[in-house]
Amino acid sequence: MKLWDKGLPTDQKIDMFTVGNDRQLDLVIAKYDIQATLAHAKMLHSIDLLSDDEILNIEKELNSLSIEIEAGTFVIENQFEDVHSKIEFELTKRIGEAGKKIHTARSRNDQVLVAMHLYLKDELLQIKSLIKELSSNLLLSAEQYKETLLPGYTHLQIAMPSSFGLWFSAYAESFVDDLYFINAALKVVDQNPLGSAAGYGSSFPIDREFTTKELGFETLKYNVVAAQMSRGKSEKSTAFAMSSVAGTLSKLAMDVCLYMSQNFNFISIPAEFTTGSSIMPHKKNPDVFELIRGKCNKIQVLPYELTLLTNNLPSGYHRDLQLLKEGIIPAIQDLKASLEMTIYALKNVTVNQNILDDNKYDYLFSVDTLNELVMKGMSFRDAYIKIGLDIENGKYKPEKNTKHSHIGSINNLCLENIKEKLKQV
Amino acid sequence: MKLWDKGLPTDQKIDMFTVGNDRQLDLVIAKYDIQATLAHAKMLHSIDLLSDDEILNIEKELNSLSIEIEAGTFVIENQFEDVHSKIEFELTKRIGEAGKKIHTARSRNDQVLVAMHLYLKDELLQIKSLIKELSSNLLLSAEQYKETLLPGYTHLQIAMPSSFGLWFSAYAESFVDDLYFINAALKVVDQNPLGSAAGYGSSFPIDREFTTKELGFETLKYNVVAAQMSRGKSEKSTAFAMSSVAGTLSKLAMDVCLYMSQNFNFISIPAEFTTGSSIMPHKKNPDVFELIRGKCNKIQVLPYELTLLTNNLPSGYHRDLQLLKEGIIPAIQDLKASLEMTIYALKNVTVNQNILDDNKYDYLFSVDTLNELVMKGMSFRDAYIKIGLDIENGKYKPEKNTKHSHIGSINNLCLENIKEKLKQV
Amino acid sequence: MKLWDKGLPTDQKIDMFTVGNDRQLDLVIAKYDIQATLAHAKMLHSIDLLSDDEILNIEKELNSLSIEIEAGTFVIENQFEDVHSKIEFELTKRIGEAGKKIHTARSRNDQVLVAMHLYLKDELLQIKSLIKELSSNLLLSAEQYKETLLPGYTHLQIAMPSSFGLWFSAYAESFVDDLYFINAALKVVDQNPLGSAAGYGSSFPIDREFTTKELGFETLKYNVVAAQMSRGKSEKSTAFAMSSVAGTLSKLAMDVCLYMSQNFNFISIPAEFTTGSSIMPHKKNPDVFELIRGKCNKIQVLPYELTLLTNNLPSGYHRDLQLLKEGIIPAIQDLKASLEMTIYALKNVTVNQNILDDNKYDYLFSVDTLNELVMKGMSFRDAYIKIGLDIENGKYKPEKNTKHSHIGSINNLCLENIKEKLKQV
Amino acid sequence: MKLWDKGLPTDQKIDMFTVGNDRQLDLVIAKYDIQATLAHAKMLHSIDLLSDDEILNIEKELNSLSIEIEAGTFVIENQFEDVHSKIEFELTKRIGEAGKKIHTARSRNDQVLVAMHLYLKDELLQIKSLIKELSSNLLLSAEQYKETLLPGYTHLQIAMPSSFGLWFSAYAESFVDDLYFINAALKVVDQNPLGSAAGYGSSFPIDREFTTKELGFETLKYNVVAAQMSRGKSEKSTAFAMSSVAGTLSKLAMDVCLYMSQNFNFISIPAEFTTGSSIMPHKKNPDVFELIRGKCNKIQVLPYELTLLTNNLPSGYHRDLQLLKEGIIPAIQDLKASLEMTIYALKNVTVNQNILDDNKYDYLFSVDTLNELVMKGMSFRDAYIKIGLDIENGKYKPEKNTKHSHIGSINNLCLENIKEKLKQV
Repeated sequence: MKLWDKGLPTDQKIDMFTVGNDRQLDLVIAKYDIQATLAHAKMLHSIDLLSDDEILNIEKELNSLSIEIEAGTFVIENQFEDVHSKIEFELTKRIGEAGKKIHTARSRNDQVLVAMHLYLKDELLQIKSLIKELSSNLLLSAEQYKETLLPGYTHLQIAMPSSFGLWFSAYAESFVDDLYFINAALKVVDQNPLGSAAGYGSSFPIDREFTTKELGFETLKYNVVAAQMSRGKSEKSTAFAMSSVAGTLSKLAMDVCLYMSQNFNFISIPAEFTTGSSIMPHKKNPDVFELIRGKCNKIQVLPYELTLLTNNLPSGYHRDLQLLKEGIIPAIQDLKASLEMTIYALKNVTVNQNILDDNKYDYLFSVDTLNELVMKGMSFRDAYIKIGLDIENGKYKPEKNTKHSHIGSINNLCLENIKEKLKQV
Repeated sequence: MKLWDKGLPTDQKIDMFTVGNDRQLDLVIAKYDIQATLAHAKMLHSIDLLSDDEILNIEKELNSLSIEIEAGTFVIENQFEDVHSKIEFELTKRIGEAGKKIHTARSRNDQVLVAMHLYLKDELLQIKSLIKELSSNLLLSAEQYKETLLPGYTHLQIAMPSSFGLWFSAYAESFVDDLYFINAALKVVDQNPLGSAAGYGSSFPIDREFTTKELGFETLKYNVVAAQMSRGKSEKSTAFAMSSVAGTLSKLAMDVCLYMSQNFNFISIPAEFTTGSSIMPHKKNPDVFELIRGKCNKIQVLPYELTLLTNNLPSGYHRDLQLLKEGIIPAIQDLKASLEMTIYALKNVTVNQNILDDNKYDYLFSVDTLNELVMKGMSFRDAYIKIGLDIENGKYKPEKNTKHSHIGSINNLCLENIKEKLKQV
Repeated sequence: MKLWDKGLPTDQKIDMFTVGNDRQLDLVIAKYDIQATLAHAKMLHSIDLLSDDEILNIEKELNSLSIEIEAGTFVIENQFEDVHSKIEFELTKRIGEAGKKIHTARSRNDQVLVAMHLYLKDELLQIKSLIKELSSNLLLSAEQYKETLLPGYTHLQIAMPSSFGLWFSAYAESFVDDLYFINAALKVVDQNPLGSAAGYGSSFPIDREFTTKELGFETLKYNVVAAQMSRGKSEKSTAFAMSSVAGTLSKLAMDVCLYMSQNFNFISIPAEFTTGSSIMPHKKNPDVFELIRGKCNKIQVLPYELTLLTNNLPSGYHRDLQLLKEGIIPAIQDLKASLEMTIYALKNVTVNQNILDDNKYDYLFSVDTLNELVMKGMSFRDAYIKIGLDIENGKYKPEKNTKHSHIGSINNLCLENIKEKLKQV
Repeated sequence: MKLWDKGLPTDQKIDMFTVGNDRQLDLVIAKYDIQATLAHAKMLHSIDLLSDDEILNIEKELNSLSIEIEAGTFVIENQFEDVHSKIEFELTKRIGEAGKKIHTARSRNDQVLVAMHLYLKDELLQIKSLIKELSSNLLLSAEQYKETLLPGYTHLQIAMPSSFGLWFSAYAESFVDDLYFINAALKVVDQNPLGSAAGYGSSFPIDREFTTKELGFETLKYNVVAAQMSRGKSEKSTAFAMSSVAGTLSKLAMDVCLYMSQNFNFISIPAEFTTGSSIMPHKKNPDVFELIRGKCNKIQVLPYELTLLTNNLPSGYHRDLQLLKEGIIPAIQDLKASLEMTIYALKNVTVNQNILDDNKYDYLFSVDTLNELVMKGMSFRDAYIKIGLDIENGKYKPEKNTKHSHIGSINNLCLENIKEKLKQV
């Protein structure tokens, strides 16, 4: 974070103001800019705007920059406003005139566009894989704890019997819905925007299908104005998908925090995921899940941040778009970290047995008892009255074995079907 | 809208407070509740919980209620808190005991869930079809005006040549991205939640595959807790998709409003889509597009409203969920109306010719001229200096014929490819 | 709500699209438009643009319209697009030419601006008074239950002793902060905007100080462009203040819902504020508080809706501003209703005694015991080890009488000071 | 920004996950923690929990830490999770046992609470002073350019005459409204929360009035639960006020960007506040104002981020609250920087003369001409028809001297009254 310093001269302040956090954020983007620059150079070579020698030199030096980036030794010094000018400078320093030529028929806007598309695609695939891992684990836990009952709540009031099998696998199936949105975002970013230049194309005879194949994009964004409009839109699409995931993960974390409260006492998580208190020796706080909840709640604001940045701006590039990165890059890190933390912590969760022995949970079974009378022929109305009276007179004795047989119920979890859904998406 | 009245007794106020706008909103939902009730009844009949006579009576009366709803004569009176209790009352009044039996093995929550899924699916399909119609029209306009040039702006500054062909088709291709989200939302809502009951399933041996087929759902939400969690989530998924569409439509409307300003004067829309002023005889205001912009901006807040309603609530039903309808139903109406209005108005748009004759637009072509010199062999640096000097000395003469040949550029719009994308999605 | 109908002809659809819900919403605004119209007319009379007879007739007819509005018999028929055209029509119908003259030197924008300022001021004052009433009641409850202990939670884990006295009065003092924002919003709306006309003033020699005094505004918005900019800004300011209140009220409702859960069982509310279940005889659901929470959460989205409607629009009127009313009017109704409901329900809350007798709450007192040893001279480190060992060995015996003496603690609630704060604001 | 690294062991990842950006953010908070720690120590001394020697040592070392912070040499190493543990460690290292004693009767939560209150108060005062400076400058510009006319727009259509005097001073008066919210936020944060400990007070006889005076707070938050609830609420209150300011500033920036477009060409800003293009020699882009707009739009999302973090959490501390800092600290920096940049840039703005000579602006004056006929005795209806016909027949000749005399209009700007408002707030 750059602090706004009272003592600086105006031009330095303008520099700080306009550059913002770009140098730091661009370290995340660097490898994708290298990748796109190489593809662009190869295309320029294919249309005879770069010679055989030039392309060889460019490729060699871009590869060596790639290694520096991977190794963490790549630095964007203060004289460069972003990664794009830094890389062009390095190329020119190392191989002379040919370095300057790579900017032929493209613009800064082009570079950011294509690098962001590659970056977002990569991250969406990683997020997708983490969700699949988490969901598979949840299905395993559901299988493991399918016999362990849990009170089901409505209005936070004790309602009907549930089970850990039901609870774990509910989240697995719910994440499938989020994956539909991850896939939609992937469709949006998996289109090559390169060639849009300043947003209106170029009079050079560039070969956009060449770069599309080279960069592994599924298709290209044909219209160059549409390509430019995908700046902001590709980030927002990614943010919608992340927001969907984050909503589910946040709710799971809320459940965990509630279930760990002494007033519920349904589950425990490994000690390393909790914190104690410097003064209260009895505390075991679910900090990790509170932070998962908090981070996921923050992520759910991201689409609105991106919306406010881009909304009511007419078509065409505006400098406001530079600020898109500030929001989405840390949010992606946070979402991945939250998913990974959940995977770790839930693997080692301890589920308390015999929760329903506590007689405050007896009434959970009143509907099951009532339904049984109905199935045996008593009318619903009479059964309702009978159970009501039994409860009032303290004569109600719950039969705490659920016999829910229908699809998706306690005793018929359909875990294989959910696993299949997860595989299909 | 219900106004909060000082003079009412407390219990009436509680009633108003808890019922809210449900009676009005539920008129929209009514036909889907009928549909789901019939499917549920048929299923009960298939598992022998309803007799042959009973199902015949139920079907007959539900059909007659359907006709009333279609005709607009169906009314939810003040003694009913929602459409669900009204329909159950009507059935019972008309066919007696059998009417009461349809509530066997389901709950109010169940009814709202399944009706909302059916409603959202239906509306998403309508929205999808409107977007396809609008996009096809935009492609036709692009074809029609592909020769008419337009200034392209960056930073709202005159930048490079663009064209109406590019502008119209950019939005067509951009809407394709929104359709990926519409499809994702469709996947989310096209899963039968019926059978979740109060959110934890039922001890009755209900046949959820029967109702899934009967209602035309692609699959079912297996896990009953997941089914319950789709309350809020299905609305939010729909809202994400709508928000994506609304963002594109709002930007299009912003462009139209700007281009109609006398300071741009690029296009005109039919008089019936504009308003005059009671005191300024020269005014022709683009009210319809301003309202499209405004309504679409409001729609983009919807996901956030739904998020705040559901966020940090542990799993299980909460009454807060009743308020989801208040936001999404009018937003759907607004989005459809905005799409339809855009379709009408753009069909009759007038595009001004010869815009670029105004010499304030001469510099648009400086890059093309520069590129031409480069293509002829001059180095970029020398060409840049030459053009710069020409401009300074007033000697720069733009050649106002663009020769942009690459994919997606002014003279190669690839409308067929975009049409194909639109068809595929 | 107006449903978008497929079968209508285009011009009727345009009418529906542009008029929206205005006729319904304007019934709320009507009395303020009458008030402002009268003040404007008197001013016109004072600068000789209306004769003595004319002003008498106008005043008489506006008063009679006022009575119709109060009585609920005033209707805005479909031929009028809003309340302003309806009122002008009525005046002209009743008193002829003089009715038309009241539009001299003002515009529609002017009318909406001033009516909204009057309306918002009135509602903010009502909200302020409801908050004061609720806060006073909370202080009374705090006094009444100051001896009744409650577990205090951090991380939803049992932490330290708290009390109902502390809990009730915490919300009272917290509402004081919200009142600072209500006051700020009042300052914003308590400035006469009338005279801005279309947003750039008028060449008529109108007397804006006259209308300022007549309408009871504290001051006027001098600059006419600033006055026009207060459209949107006055609504947003009100929404910020409402959002602040709603945040506090929503948290209070969340506490109530949690405390009513059988897993906490701290309080009960009167039966008429709860609902049962058609199938579960044991349910007593806190629906009213869930709806307070939900409505207050929706209200917290309002500033964002108003922001999206107005953001990135250059200065000057845009038709988008018409949509501001749709959000804020129902939100004001909801906030007032939520405050009133809370006042009713909390008046009759039942607080459970002896909650802390349950020994799961024993550890609440470990820090107090520890501090006591420190006060008696033992070092903190030694005391911490001793209590830790006692807990481990099951020898820890809590002394369940708190002796917290400092300002604002359990045994020194400072209710008078909070009352004084409440009075000052 | 901390990147989530695949290769790290779990416990290190947990550490990274829970600590987040705290070390970096806490450098901003450090000086306020020192200040509050000193006040707390003095209070402990006053109630005999610290000896004379101990308080002398503590004061000396806190002062020396203060100097390090001021000098920028203070570092929070990786073994400390935040500034609070770092400072306690340093004190203990330097002065032994007495260093440990400063934590008596307070908690981490306490420290964050009071440090944030001091920090927010300080920043709000700085923001207030920047707004006053900007507004005063705007009034000076208004005075300087009061004779220079400008087209006034409604619906982005040419409407009525305006002036630079009107435009500049409109923003000055509009900022007054934002200052009411800054003042409200100041009232909220200017209350001492210290003594809340973990959120339920302490059994030590601490003297909260002592620390209130020592820290210069106007009053204290009496109730300790209310004090704890101000975590989140104080940040949100500040964010509401910042959001109000940002909305006005963003609109001003939008106007500037529009007015700098060649299609308007009303103003120019100094070259150092614009950027050129590497390929388009004619470009002079208003990047600084686009970034002001973008940053201010991001700031307007802050209240929703803070709302989502805290919403639907029951009372009492939750770890989620740690994430509040991540949003508000950079937003404060951005708002101050945006205000300072606007002050710099507007000081040197060039206003184009004779804009209205362009005859596309002729119709701006039609209403003035019409009003003049009315003032001379012609009826409005006849005058309207006459002007309408004149326009149609090309005979309309505008008299381009405005004679708007009423309060707040072009020729009567009331700058002194606005200055007075600004002084009062």
